[in-house]
Amino acid sequence: MVSARRKKDRLVLDTSIFVNPDVRNDFGSSPSEAMNNFLLMAEQIPSLEFYMPSSVFDELLNFVDKRRIPGALLAVLHRKSPSKHELTTPAFFLYELIEDMRQRINKGLRVAEAAVKSAGKVDEREIIQGMRKSYREALREGILDSREDVDLILLAKELDAVLVTVDQGAVKWAEKLGIRWLLPEKFKEYLQSFIDKA
Amino acid sequence: MVSARRKKDRLVLDTSIFVNPDVRNDFGSSPSEAMNNFLLMAEQIPSLEFYMPSSVFDELLNFVDKRRIPGALLAVLHRKSPSKHELTTPAFFLYELIEDMRQRINKGLRVAEAAVKSAGKVDEREIIQGMRKSYREALREGILDSREDVDLILLAKELDAVLVTVDQGAVKWAEKLGIRWLLPEKFKEYLQSFIDKA
Repeated sequence: MVSARRKKDRLVLDTSIFVNPDVRNDFGSSPSEAMNNFLLMAEQIPSLEFYMPSSVFDELLNFVDKRRIPGALLAVLHRKSPSKHELTTPAFFLYELIEDMRQRINKGLRVAEAAVKSAGKVDEREIIQGMRKSYREALREGILDSREDVDLILLAKELDAVLVTVDQGAVKWAEKLGIRWLLPEKFKEYLQSFIDKA
Repeated sequence: MVSARRKKDRLVLDTSIFVNPDVRNDFGSSPSEAMNNFLLMAEQIPSLEFYMPSSVFDELLNFVDKRRIPGALLAVLHRKSPSKHELTTPAFFLYELIEDMRQRINKGLRVAEAAVKSAGKVDEREIIQGMRKSYREALREGILDSREDVDLILLAKELDAVLVTVDQGAVKWAEKLGIRWLLPEKFKEYLQSFIDKA
């Protein structure tokens, strides 16, 4: 219904598509190869427009050799940040975010307590390493926890685009805002279906 | 400028005014007494309207004897939640909230690490109690961390009201939204100035 108003549908892509092995392997064995193969497909689909938030694009540059990015990619994958000073989000979003954080803060405290209780039993360095891992998991998993995540969902909202990411936290919050999203493991098949129809 | 458009100016009150001793003592030696004395003043100021979010009002009921709340208070202090499904907040707010949380999460982890390192040196129960305190301080101080805080700032925004709270976290976020606020320790003098002018 929504996309019918426009000739071109839009997609907002996360780095994870080119980096996370579960999805990336559909496109190539390295981030650079995956990116190039995505480009070859995307160029054949004039009916889709691809976007990536600037912050997420910068993340991608940590994984690919900048010199190997073809100029054609930049013509296909538009780099754009959300208009964060004009966009608004519904106020109930704030309540959910804060409730989510409260629960996680409590989880983090329980992780810390368990670590203190186990101190003395095993090597201290080991306890601290284990605690760091559990703590980060408890506080971050499924949460909207980074500027990059917020950029993804706000850009998708702004452009009325389909979000493609492996990040479950971003998907969860995208759903709260009524943003369309794609199972990332079906992304290549999705693109192929446009090529087959052409 | 803003309030000139309306005959009556509005104030959104936090429980802390009647509970936090620093401010409450201006009004009375107990929350119930403070509330009653506030009421006596408020009744003399027809040019001000007082509001309290429902969630905050419920908090207040933990501190005062429900049976001692005079009906007149309910005529003066309006109980109202913000219209959270209609209100929106600027998107940059989300970025700031998430950045704030990230910093606090890291602080919490450092608190936990310090606790593990001190384990074995002092009594375990003592370490855990100390850690809980430091952890909560690290993660909550100055932050918008509860439904009640969000209710306060959103209601003030919705009503274009002056916020009166002792909570520095709420004040900090109120400022981001351009909400007017009052030094809580001047609240009684502020009310008195209206009575004197009458």
